[in-house]
Amino acid sequence: VSDHTRAVRRRIVTEAARLFTSAGYAATSTRAIASAVGLRQSSLYYYFPTKECILVRLLGSAWRPALEQAATIAAAPEPADVRLAALLLTDLEALLALPFELGALYYLPEARAPQFADLWRDRDRLRAHYVDLACEAAAAGRLPDGPGGAASAADLVFRITESLAVSRGDAGPPDAELVDVTVARCLALLGVADPAAVQAAAARLRHRLGVAPGAWDDAGA
Amino acid sequence: VSDHTRAVRRRIVTEAARLFTSAGYAATSTRAIASAVGLRQSSLYYYFPTKECILVRLLGSAWRPALEQAATIAAAPEPADVRLAALLLTDLEALLALPFELGALYYLPEARAPQFADLWRDRDRLRAHYVDLACEAAAAGRLPDGPGGAASAADLVFRITESLAVSRGDAGPPDAELVDVTVARCLALLGVADPAAVQAAAARLRHRLGVAPGAWDDAGA
Repeated sequence: VSDHTRAVRRRIVTEAARLFTSAGYAATSTRAIASAVGLRQSSLYYYFPTKECILVRLLGSAWRPALEQAATIAAAPEPADVRLAALLLTDLEALLALPFELGALYYLPEARAPQFADLWRDRDRLRAHYVDLACEAAAAGRLPDGPGGAASAADLVFRITESLAVSRGDAGPPDAELVDVTVARCLALLGVADPAAVQAAAARLRHRLGVAPGAWDDAGA
Repeated sequence: VSDHTRAVRRRIVTEAARLFTSAGYAATSTRAIASAVGLRQSSLYYYFPTKECILVRLLGSAWRPALEQAATIAAAPEPADVRLAALLLTDLEALLALPFELGALYYLPEARAPQFADLWRDRDRLRAHYVDLACEAAAAGRLPDGPGGAASAADLVFRITESLAVSRGDAGPPDAELVDVTVARCLALLGVADPAAVQAAAARLRHRLGVAPGAWDDAGA
């Protein structure tokens, strides 16, 4: 895929996300998307044959990048809380690198249609990684498993990362500091005794595994 | 307002929320809502003159109950972190008492129309209470004001409460334990040194003020 194609695809999905969010999915025509990008409708079809393909691409961006790294991270020999921190960091980086807000897309009635079921299963798989790592860490005595349990705490952390992707308006511009601060806060929420040490170990793990924030364009394109 | 009227209104908004979420706002007719509740369309108008009135009622439920208590809580003499915990508890109770998920409603393109601006200003006001109390607590040395700052931590906590109202599917059934556990986790995220003590003080404050979880039907009806 050429740089030019990538750049055009990025512009298309960004404009489509904006239109789907402001006018609704059903009310947005491919003609309107093409016009917003400055393409003829016939050229748009070269990049995305249908409007639905654009929505698949948008929703797929939410979970796939982190999911692609999750199995590798989960299989590493580090303690489970360190792996959980590495997954969280990877997920947040991927979500905040999206060139659009998931926002309304995430809640479009159309996104619940059967043809998108695979994407929602990706979400469940990613969430399961969070929960499994938290349970493993609790079993190893590295996370408290108090009222509500480590699993439900991990679930809440998963929702926090999602909520930042859904609407980051209040959270300020996405930057490395926001990611680090959010990870630290989530580790505090999970009850990690020494968040700074876990965060540093997670950074080393990611470095060793070569987990880089994948370019948005590389995921599921 | 009679008990019967309340019960019917509750059924109408619950069914409307379900239909708006599954089929979309524009695609849902008042006839479909009336039919789902088992009313004639002409009877529906007695409870809600327009579909828009139902949406106002649904969105108004999100922030108004907590906002109505927020000023009283904020003006109490307790330390700011205790007042913040009391506000958080009040907000969570109100959101989890809603007989529907905010879900897609929150992100409906239609909900961004100018006639709903007052409701979104309510959200900003409620959020400002969170942020102000966190800043006051940090200034008093009762919350750490590290990287990112107490204001941004409070903002994240506000988003957590919202995310539970938007979609509580993963969070299990709303119950008193969920509320307490979530408050404890949010206090840990904020960096409160002794969450249990702050939570107990917040419960005493609410008891003294007579802050009761308002019935959903009482708010902005």
